[in-house]
Amino acid sequence: MIYIERKERFSAAHQLYNPHWSEEKNQAVFGKCANKNFHGHNYTLTVTVKGKINPDTGFVMNLVDLKQLITEHITEKLDHANLNHDVDFMRGKFSSTEVLAEEIWKILEPLIAAHGCQLHKIRLDETLNNAVEYFGED
Amino acid sequence: MIYIERKERFSAAHQLYNPHWSEEKNQAVFGKCANKNFHGHNYTLTVTVKGKINPDTGFVMNLVDLKQLITEHITEKLDHANLNHDVDFMRGKFSSTEVLAEEIWKILEPLIAAHGCQLHKIRLDETLNNAVEYFGED
Amino acid sequence: MIYIERKERFSAAHQLYNPHWSEEKNQAVFGKCANKNFHGHNYTLTVTVKGKINPDTGFVMNLVDLKQLITEHITEKLDHANLNHDVDFMRGKFSSTEVLAEEIWKILEPLIAAHGCQLHKIRLDETLNNAVEYFGED
Amino acid sequence: MIYIERKERFSAAHQLYNPHWSEEKNQAVFGKCANKNFHGHNYTLTVTVKGKINPDTGFVMNLVDLKQLITEHITEKLDHANLNHDVDFMRGKFSSTEVLAEEIWKILEPLIAAHGCQLHKIRLDETLNNAVEYFGED
Amino acid sequence: MIYIERKERFSAAHQLYNPHWSEEKNQAVFGKCANKNFHGHNYTLTVTVKGKINPDTGFVMNLVDLKQLITEHITEKLDHANLNHDVDFMRGKFSSTEVLAEEIWKILEPLIAAHGCQLHKIRLDETLNNAVEYFGED
Amino acid sequence: MIYIERKERFSAAHQLYNPHWSEEKNQAVFGKCANKNFHGHNYTLTVTVKGKINPDTGFVMNLVDLKQLITEHITEKLDHANLNHDVDFMRGKFSSTEVLAEEIWKILEPLIAAHGCQLHKIRLDETLNNAVEYFGED
Repeated sequence: MIYIERKERFSAAHQLYNPHWSEEKNQAVFGKCANKNFHGHNYTLTVTVKGKINPDTGFVMNLVDLKQLITEHITEKLDHANLNHDVDFMRGKFSSTEVLAEEIWKILEPLIAAHGCQLHKIRLDETLNNAVEYFGED
Repeated sequence: MIYIERKERFSAAHQLYNPHWSEEKNQAVFGKCANKNFHGHNYTLTVTVKGKINPDTGFVMNLVDLKQLITEHITEKLDHANLNHDVDFMRGKFSSTEVLAEEIWKILEPLIAAHGCQLHKIRLDETLNNAVEYFGED
Repeated sequence: MIYIERKERFSAAHQLYNPHWSEEKNQAVFGKCANKNFHGHNYTLTVTVKGKINPDTGFVMNLVDLKQLITEHITEKLDHANLNHDVDFMRGKFSSTEVLAEEIWKILEPLIAAHGCQLHKIRLDETLNNAVEYFGED
Repeated sequence: MIYIERKERFSAAHQLYNPHWSEEKNQAVFGKCANKNFHGHNYTLTVTVKGKINPDTGFVMNLVDLKQLITEHITEKLDHANLNHDVDFMRGKFSSTEVLAEEIWKILEPLIAAHGCQLHKIRLDETLNNAVEYFGED
Repeated sequence: MIYIERKERFSAAHQLYNPHWSEEKNQAVFGKCANKNFHGHNYTLTVTVKGKINPDTGFVMNLVDLKQLITEHITEKLDHANLNHDVDFMRGKFSSTEVLAEEIWKILEPLIAAHGCQLHKIRLDETLNNAVEYFGED
Repeated sequence: MIYIERKERFSAAHQLYNPHWSEEKNQAVFGKCANKNFHGHNYTLTVTVKGKINPDTGFVMNLVDLKQLITEHITEKLDHANLNHDVDFMRGKFSSTEVLAEEIWKILEPLIAAHGCQLHKIRLDETLNNAVEYFGED
């Protein structure tokens, strides 16, 4: 059992905002992240897949296939997008890094399972200093 | 004569768009950077200052002062902002990295001269792979 | 259940030395790390916190609060300090990265618990190539 | 119980190729990685060791010893080598990052155990975006 | 006048060897870089272009065009290749980083001039610690 | 004419302090950098050498020789040292990054000239965000 990881990058805008709260409360909790004109980040997405080594290839999963899954289903939708307005799977959700990581898990988990492997971790680096990891745990 | 540099970081949203052009031409030239809902980046600003070593301190310029100039006049205005809408010194200008670097030069050059030093270079990294450098040349 | 992490940095001096040993034994075991005039590092501290996503914010814990806890209780005490002489919580202890990581855990664990979250990991990078991770295990 | 890690680097050539397959099938599966004249990478090897802190040193294991084990038994054999032809412990095996990580584990595990510690993880970064982790699990 | 830069990456194998020298002399001068079975690196190519800002776009040169020039003419030929055997423009030349940087300059200089800009610098990082820069100077 | 660079790293302690000033003035100017018990950094030294490509090797200068010069004359003296007390060529000087870069230039310039090349630049990164460059200019 071995773990492989692939990084892909995307640049997106977002705003942290709770529509059920007053402007004041949004400012108090989210500070400058609540800016109504949005701000943005260069995100790095790291996808870790777990599996056995295939004796015919020496691979757990062909990284060409993994890269293809990630770009088609995730990063092509997120790159140069607004997480609050442009992304189907983020509609009506907070655009925090935590929620984004969970939604990416939901999409990639069955796609990777269909290749006979297991999604192990979604990691999202939002800035040099802030990141999130999700292992599919409730 | 020696050069010192200080890096500061900010996260901002922007859109590349020429208002005198049709939507089609904007798409053709700027591609996904023209997204009307914006996208964003983690920018790294590197400011290089040139001067002689002060014999009383061993410094060209105190980095505490340089950091203070950069944050007060530049990065506090750019961080978590929308370059097209929220930043006074970018009003009515393209929010390309090139133009942003030039505008930062115009603000910092006299402030650093007032400390008896010389601004040498503004560098802006927009992504892992794209950057701009400006030396104040016409 | 999701994990968030925050990095903070500090620069400190230290010396590795066992006062119950001879100078020769200290040299033999600690080599140049035993230099009596100290040496130093730029440390990167990574704090990982585990919790459930708050449905009102999309956050596990507000990173502004986490950053505040780390800087007030840890990095303001360690930055530009001598780990052997200047830091209250390191008094009488080895200033190895391992011991420092454990002591940081002891301080942050209850403070993060008071925010309704759980400290998961303390990571300390001492150089480009050397690091330590502590998960609170005996 | 605490974890220490040490990174070492090496530059090597390799080719991904299954000798029981036709040229066409090798091309289909391995693509440009099957180039018969080889290609190469700068690999970063990260070795993580788990153990208790020695009360006489503040160390889990002296990093000087860990570095010596890794360079003597692993990186001196891999650096500036061809993974398909020059490395005794890779003879007859796929030169994928997965297989290389497993073979490094087999060599280092007993050597680290002989120092009273436990090998916890072998991580190999092959490029900026691709990496593998092995924990000795079947 | 402003400078823009674009990074692209490739992984290649090579051997440093002077065919007019004995095996002994090659070993003495090139050491392990002379390994007849090749070794390899992850190279990072940084291309810096100099020009005036276009008042219709805010760009010196569209980075989409620059990326396209670099990948079509340079990195698609170098990636997963053997610099001594597979690359037309390196035929019969030393595969040192210095020579490679010069040959890349010769190819890109007229292509960038055709876009109305000026190639300013070719930088090649061969490892974390070794790099070369070429400005077209004799 | 082409430029090659080599990075070497060292970890050192230092204190910024002017002995002709009062404690108060030292605190006012140098702040926490004046800590009498020292603090420290992981420094990265980048040495850039300029020269013509040798037609027999494809090299400007053999990086093995350059590395040997830097480690013997500079980094072995600085690594795990106290810049204020342990380093012969820093005796009686400010241990600022600026002064250290100048002193390294004075030592390496004639040694590199003796290899038929020209020292072009000394760069010292003191932290992730602070660096100095010296080109031998008065």
